[in-house]
Amino acid sequence: ELQKKLDAMHPADVARLLEALPLNQRLLVWDLVKAERDGEILLEVSDAVRESLIQSMDEAELRAAAQTLDTDELADLAPDLPPQVIEEVMLSLPAEERARLQSALSYAEDSVGALMDFDIITVREDVKLEVVMRYLRRLDEFPDQTDKLFVVDRTGTLKGVLPIKRLLLHDPATVVKDVMEQDIVTLRPEDKARDAASAFERYDLVTAPVVSADNKIVGRLTVDAVVDYIRERSEAEVLGLGGLEEEEDLFAPVIKSVKNRWAWLAINLVTAFIASRVIGIFEGTIAQLTALAALMPIVAGIGGNSGNQTITMIVRALALGQITRENAKKLFLKEIAVALVNGVIWGAVVGLFAFAIYHSVSLGVVMMAAMILNLLLAAVMGVLIPLIRYRLGADPAAGSSVMITAITDSGGFFIFLGLATLFLT
Amino acid sequence: ELQKKLDAMHPADVARLLEALPLNQRLLVWDLVKAERDGEILLEVSDAVRESLIQSMDEAELRAAAQTLDTDELADLAPDLPPQVIEEVMLSLPAEERARLQSALSYAEDSVGALMDFDIITVREDVKLEVVMRYLRRLDEFPDQTDKLFVVDRTGTLKGVLPIKRLLLHDPATVVKDVMEQDIVTLRPEDKARDAASAFERYDLVTAPVVSADNKIVGRLTVDAVVDYIRERSEAEVLGLGGLEEEEDLFAPVIKSVKNRWAWLAINLVTAFIASRVIGIFEGTIAQLTALAALMPIVAGIGGNSGNQTITMIVRALALGQITRENAKKLFLKEIAVALVNGVIWGAVVGLFAFAIYHSVSLGVVMMAAMILNLLLAAVMGVLIPLIRYRLGADPAAGSSVMITAITDSGGFFIFLGLATLFLT
Ligand SMILES: [Mg+2]
Ligand SMILES: [Mg+2]
Ligand SMILES: [Mg+2]
Ligand SMILES: [Mg+2]
Ligand SMILES: [Mg+2]
Ligand SMILES: [Mg+2]
Ligand SMILES: [Mg+2]
Ligand SMILES: [Mg+2]
Ligand SMILES: [Mg+2]
Ligand SMILES: [Mg+2]
Ligand SMILES: [Mg+2]
Ligand SMILES: [Mg+2]
Ligand SMILES: [Mg+2]
Repeated sequence: ELQKKLDAMHPADVARLLEALPLNQRLLVWDLVKAERDGEILLEVSDAVRESLIQSMDEAELRAAAQTLDTDELADLAPDLPPQVIEEVMLSLPAEERARLQSALSYAEDSVGALMDFDIITVREDVKLEVVMRYLRRLDEFPDQTDKLFVVDRTGTLKGVLPIKRLLLHDPATVVKDVMEQDIVTLRPEDKARDAASAFERYDLVTAPVVSADNKIVGRLTVDAVVDYIRERSEAEVLGLGGLEEEEDLFAPVIKSVKNRWAWLAINLVTAFIASRVIGIFEGTIAQLTALAALMPIVAGIGGNSGNQTITMIVRALALGQITRENAKKLFLKEIAVALVNGVIWGAVVGLFAFAIYHSVSLGVVMMAAMILNLLLAAVMGVLIPLIRYRLGADPAAGSSVMITAITDSGGFFIFLGLATLFLT
Repeated sequence: ELQKKLDAMHPADVARLLEALPLNQRLLVWDLVKAERDGEILLEVSDAVRESLIQSMDEAELRAAAQTLDTDELADLAPDLPPQVIEEVMLSLPAEERARLQSALSYAEDSVGALMDFDIITVREDVKLEVVMRYLRRLDEFPDQTDKLFVVDRTGTLKGVLPIKRLLLHDPATVVKDVMEQDIVTLRPEDKARDAASAFERYDLVTAPVVSADNKIVGRLTVDAVVDYIRERSEAEVLGLGGLEEEEDLFAPVIKSVKNRWAWLAINLVTAFIASRVIGIFEGTIAQLTALAALMPIVAGIGGNSGNQTITMIVRALALGQITRENAKKLFLKEIAVALVNGVIWGAVVGLFAFAIYHSVSLGVVMMAAMILNLLLAAVMGVLIPLIRYRLGADPAAGSSVMITAITDSGGFFIFLGLATLFLT
């Protein structure tokens, strides 16, 4: 029954099933999964679900699962395993693999080193293609995603790559050297994963060699790892914009979910308190003219929306490397112009709204002026915040949205109530 | 000089350069690009920049550019070309390709049909691998990303696939039929691109055959097209969350940018007007107690943030297919529990804040009660909005954030000012 179905399923599909099950049912299914498949399935589930599965396993099970994995996969799983399990597995490895695992563990999470694998097939440049073919036929494993072989010399230095395509198309009597490609994309383990991903995207790569500083081959990056990376990154981005620290196990205990959402709410509360105190300054004005209380959220809200649009644009342009010292000024001026046009249009609309409801021309005019000024503030800060964060080496996206909203809320209240205090009371 | 550099650059890199240049410089560089490369570069640039380049070209140039492209690429470019150019190019194609182009143009934008290409190599199941090898050597083109050949019968019906890996590993005397794979992922042109992308991601595919209803091969989907699709979709998602209709040419004229941002601001203005009128109902209460004006944005703001967190979670779970009829209720209860816990914690914090500033216990209590109620409202609507949109067949993400914010703003003001009217005046 279920057991058989599970055995026939691809590990990624088992992972998906586990993700969608509440904790108790999830652990029931997990028990039915064959022990030798535990490792590959742990690799496929999300961090949150992985944690719940690992917690249900004892050390012997974890060790057995870890031992079914390749070095690169083990490195991916390691942060989630108890340290003593890692240590024991490490000791059981042959020296070369142990060294590999240690170096794989040493790379930063978002580096090429963390994403690469060691499934490389190397050939020498002075042999004929027919020899390469015979060599391949004798291999007992041919790694997935292999679209090229790596041509190295005796010291392991990368001389070029031999695309499988060329191996198939050229006369078997040709020598590797004469058909290998030399103008190739190579990566370094320290390279940022996002730069590697963008190279894969631009040049339509399936695999790329990863080399050390002295051009010795150390591994390869494959497109399936890149796809996973892109997906994870875009998910993290969306989660971050929505105010979640990390992906949440759908069926996590309430307390875990509260923790995952805590930071964002706390930050927003602080900015809300500040905005509240800004309004507090003008309580006297509001007491004289309560219409202000009803109108002020409009000025603040539209400012926030407009500022977020500017930030989205700038962050995207920074990510694509489109912003240079020369064009930054031009961009800045453009955003100000857009804000001015928007300010006049939407300012007129809200001014008329205020006039229609409160029959006061001066209130309408103050409303329009506040709107224009707050949109200008939003544009200026919407350009500056991500640019400054970027210059300081911080992620221009993270937190920018919270900051701009804080500024346009407090700023919008201050501008509107300040103008009202000056001209309406 | 620049001309030579451009000629040596990969089309994707030329595209990137064009994206980062202001319009006048962009057109200067575009003039330097060799005419026979125009087509491949137009494919790589963003829609906004493509439009600016196409506007600078006359019909003869566009026709020449179009004629350098494959049928599938032509179909991608077609929506941006003047109709008479398409027609002329269509007429110049051989009958078979014309039929292909017409069918390619007929597929919906987010379908497999729109992403697939026609670069397929087919072999028969009754030949030996050495015959296949000889056949490949005689081809003048071997499509990029080819990791498998398609095994078809005389009618073009797909019988299986022959991974290049097996072609290389098995004895050349083996017959295709004995080594081909039959348990394979096949796609249909009408399949949703997102489902195909998730199959590529799960099964680590490089290519997959696309077949018609009667299992005849019609094309193939490649991982580079999938990567582009994933990237574009995630970008559209981020842009949408930020309130931009589509990606914006960094150097678009101001008026274009204003248009691109118009819809979101208009919608937000309407919701702001509604919130403003809700406050308007309670102007009498605010006149008696102006502290309410300073405190009300806190209740509304935190409700909006919390609701957006819930929506982000639910939208992600829907996208991953993790929500079923059975677990929906469980999820609903969990979100309510999270909201209650958050409401009590943050309600106490804001209640104390209100008490500390205005020295009124009852004001603090009202503040706390309003906070709890608005967070519950946010949780209920945060689950319901995306679920209902999903059931109705709409995109659960698009617009959900605007809706939840509108509800928690107006709802928050109503709850807080309503409670204040009842208990504080
Ligand atoms: Mg098990
Ligand atoms: Mg992870
Ligand atoms: Mg491996
Ligand atoms: Mg790794
Ligand atoms: Mg792999
Ligand atoms: Mg590409
Ligand atoms: Mg707001
Ligand atoms: Mg040109
Ligand atoms: Mg497009
Ligand atoms: Mg093609
Ligand atoms: Mg297409
Ligand atoms: Mg292609
Ligand atoms: Mg995968």
